[in-house]
Amino acid sequence: MRKPGGVFTPYGRPSQHEKSVARRIGANKAVPGNGVSWTPLEDLEGMLTPSGLHFERHHNGVPEIDPDKHELLIHGMVKQPLTFNVQRLARYPMRSHLIFLECGGNSNAGWHEQPIQKPVGSVHGLVSCSEWTGVPMRFLLEEAAIDSKASWIVAEGADAFAMNVSIPLSKVMDDCIAALYQNGEKIHPEHGYPLRLIAPGWEGVLNVKWLRRVQVTDEPVMARNETAKYTELLPSGKARQFTFVMDAKSLITSPTQGQILPEPAIYEIRGLAWSGRGRISKVEVSADGGKTWGEAALQQPVLPRCFTRFRSPWKWNGKRAVLKSRATDEAGYVQPERAKLVEERGRHGYFHYHAIVAWEVDEEGAVNHVYE
Amino acid sequence: MRKPGGVFTPYGRPSQHEKSVARRIGANKAVPGNGVSWTPLEDLEGMLTPSGLHFERHHNGVPEIDPDKHELLIHGMVKQPLTFNVQRLARYPMRSHLIFLECGGNSNAGWHEQPIQKPVGSVHGLVSCSEWTGVPMRFLLEEAAIDSKASWIVAEGADAFAMNVSIPLSKVMDDCIAALYQNGEKIHPEHGYPLRLIAPGWEGVLNVKWLRRVQVTDEPVMARNETAKYTELLPSGKARQFTFVMDAKSLITSPTQGQILPEPAIYEIRGLAWSGRGRISKVEVSADGGKTWGEAALQQPVLPRCFTRFRSPWKWNGKRAVLKSRATDEAGYVQPERAKLVEERGRHGYFHYHAIVAWEVDEEGAVNHVYE
Repeated sequence: MRKPGGVFTPYGRPSQHEKSVARRIGANKAVPGNGVSWTPLEDLEGMLTPSGLHFERHHNGVPEIDPDKHELLIHGMVKQPLTFNVQRLARYPMRSHLIFLECGGNSNAGWHEQPIQKPVGSVHGLVSCSEWTGVPMRFLLEEAAIDSKASWIVAEGADAFAMNVSIPLSKVMDDCIAALYQNGEKIHPEHGYPLRLIAPGWEGVLNVKWLRRVQVTDEPVMARNETAKYTELLPSGKARQFTFVMDAKSLITSPTQGQILPEPAIYEIRGLAWSGRGRISKVEVSADGGKTWGEAALQQPVLPRCFTRFRSPWKWNGKRAVLKSRATDEAGYVQPERAKLVEERGRHGYFHYHAIVAWEVDEEGAVNHVYE
Repeated sequence: MRKPGGVFTPYGRPSQHEKSVARRIGANKAVPGNGVSWTPLEDLEGMLTPSGLHFERHHNGVPEIDPDKHELLIHGMVKQPLTFNVQRLARYPMRSHLIFLECGGNSNAGWHEQPIQKPVGSVHGLVSCSEWTGVPMRFLLEEAAIDSKASWIVAEGADAFAMNVSIPLSKVMDDCIAALYQNGEKIHPEHGYPLRLIAPGWEGVLNVKWLRRVQVTDEPVMARNETAKYTELLPSGKARQFTFVMDAKSLITSPTQGQILPEPAIYEIRGLAWSGRGRISKVEVSADGGKTWGEAALQQPVLPRCFTRFRSPWKWNGKRAVLKSRATDEAGYVQPERAKLVEERGRHGYFHYHAIVAWEVDEEGAVNHVYE
């Protein structure tokens, strides 16, 4: 290097050589801004997701909000309806949650009859991990003085879809925050700027972006996104609704679909595990499709409801192998095999797929998605 | 909101309303790319720093490096000199460190005779907190087979300055990594893309960016940045050199210099604490210039050698107050008052300033930097 380098920048960006590391967008052409974008999990290492690569799910695009005009209204079954602007909220006590956020529709291709052949992030990347900081909802609700008969809230966003959902009051009082910051800085527009409801460990849809209204009630509102969506018809004919907590799950992110192992050698199996119920207590990996399992090393710190990076050395001998990972959380919940999940939930599933994922390494070293 | 919002983006950015949240650049006009940029600590909350706002210190700008051509050479007192390209390094086992990184020259305005009146980030913002992931240096050095008489390494960057420093071999074998990832994604160019040496808890200058060469030796190289710089002449006439570990330190980031408290009311005192020796065990805050102290709440998780966010409620009664914070780490080290640090180190200091910082709130609510 014989010449001076580039100058200082007010706000840095990734290298131009990393342009391919981007969210994959799957948007509905008929409805502007309706769709998702996936986090490229296959390109990431460690436990954090940069905000620029955090997954998105929008119903009607990213609203442009002037933070000086945005307000949060708390009303309904309260003694004193209140509004809070951003400046006022910034004076309340704050808390941080370093947590995963996962869309209830993540991994839904797992319900397909045939294993989909796409990169791991493009199937399972509606999950990301950030630090969120803001005001505990409890402080705001206590100031409004909740009616003793209240048991739910209905949270609504300021987007054109006016996204709304119901959340039990007990959860809101326990650990939900009205977040102003993500990963240290103000939340990016697509993640809810200037204000987002964060419900740690629970379905992504409950983490309402662009939060503008919280109505305290004594029953759920039965909105589109808790009835027509995020609800599963079971084989018994009953429906599974308001499941809320995201179950323990894990994925191998390397080796992974689309990669080619260049030669028989020692590789590090790497992946991510998480659970809405608390800490990951164990991740096991198998290279023989689940006949035998070994325990992977967990990168410290292992934090509750946060991504946990696991790693395990593996010697590929050049023969066909099937790699799997299986997470267990501190509540004792064990990530199920796909066959077991399909048996429980039937074939009408779309949401809440969290079964073990299997990658086949064939004799050429090519890695494919398989069901076995 | 009655119109559809904006579309999906491959890589997100902060809101246009947050343009003022940027690194403050202090560059030397005579030497392109020589200088620093500060993290705006007064604008951040939580413990993480987005990579785009992580502080910079360059000697000759940010080199443009093609990762397919970059190599790390390990040579000197080894049986087998080795080179590693990025693709090869990616196959080695990895580890992550979620840690602060602080320039040894951070807060140097603290040595001035008069308290400088600048925002906290523009004085103390040569410190940031990221997750770094890469290959333990131990694996690479063991493969090269170190001579038993070796005791140091000399690490060199690929910038035009060819930045180099010496690090004791014991530290390198203990926990240093050759990092490829920062906050989940590949390291940004200004932070060392594609490869950076990370020495957790030690002076920022040792964390060599654009790492291209590691020479194993039995003595330090006595480079510019460990002799002319990062060394302090003490009142006794002796020099303090190779101090390495960053001492326990804390700062109140709100209320802070330049803010105006709008009215007598309850405010949350918020700040950051960190120590190169491990976890922060306690942060005390004072509102009377250090006469009386109370213990602040520490945001969990409290991690070793990582930013710890502390918060404490404070009722401002409208009279003059002097706010201070004092960190204690798990090694028992207590952050000193400024007078004590000056007494120990004399008046020729430039580096390693970590004394207690005092903010005066005057009767109008204006916050100023004071020495008292």
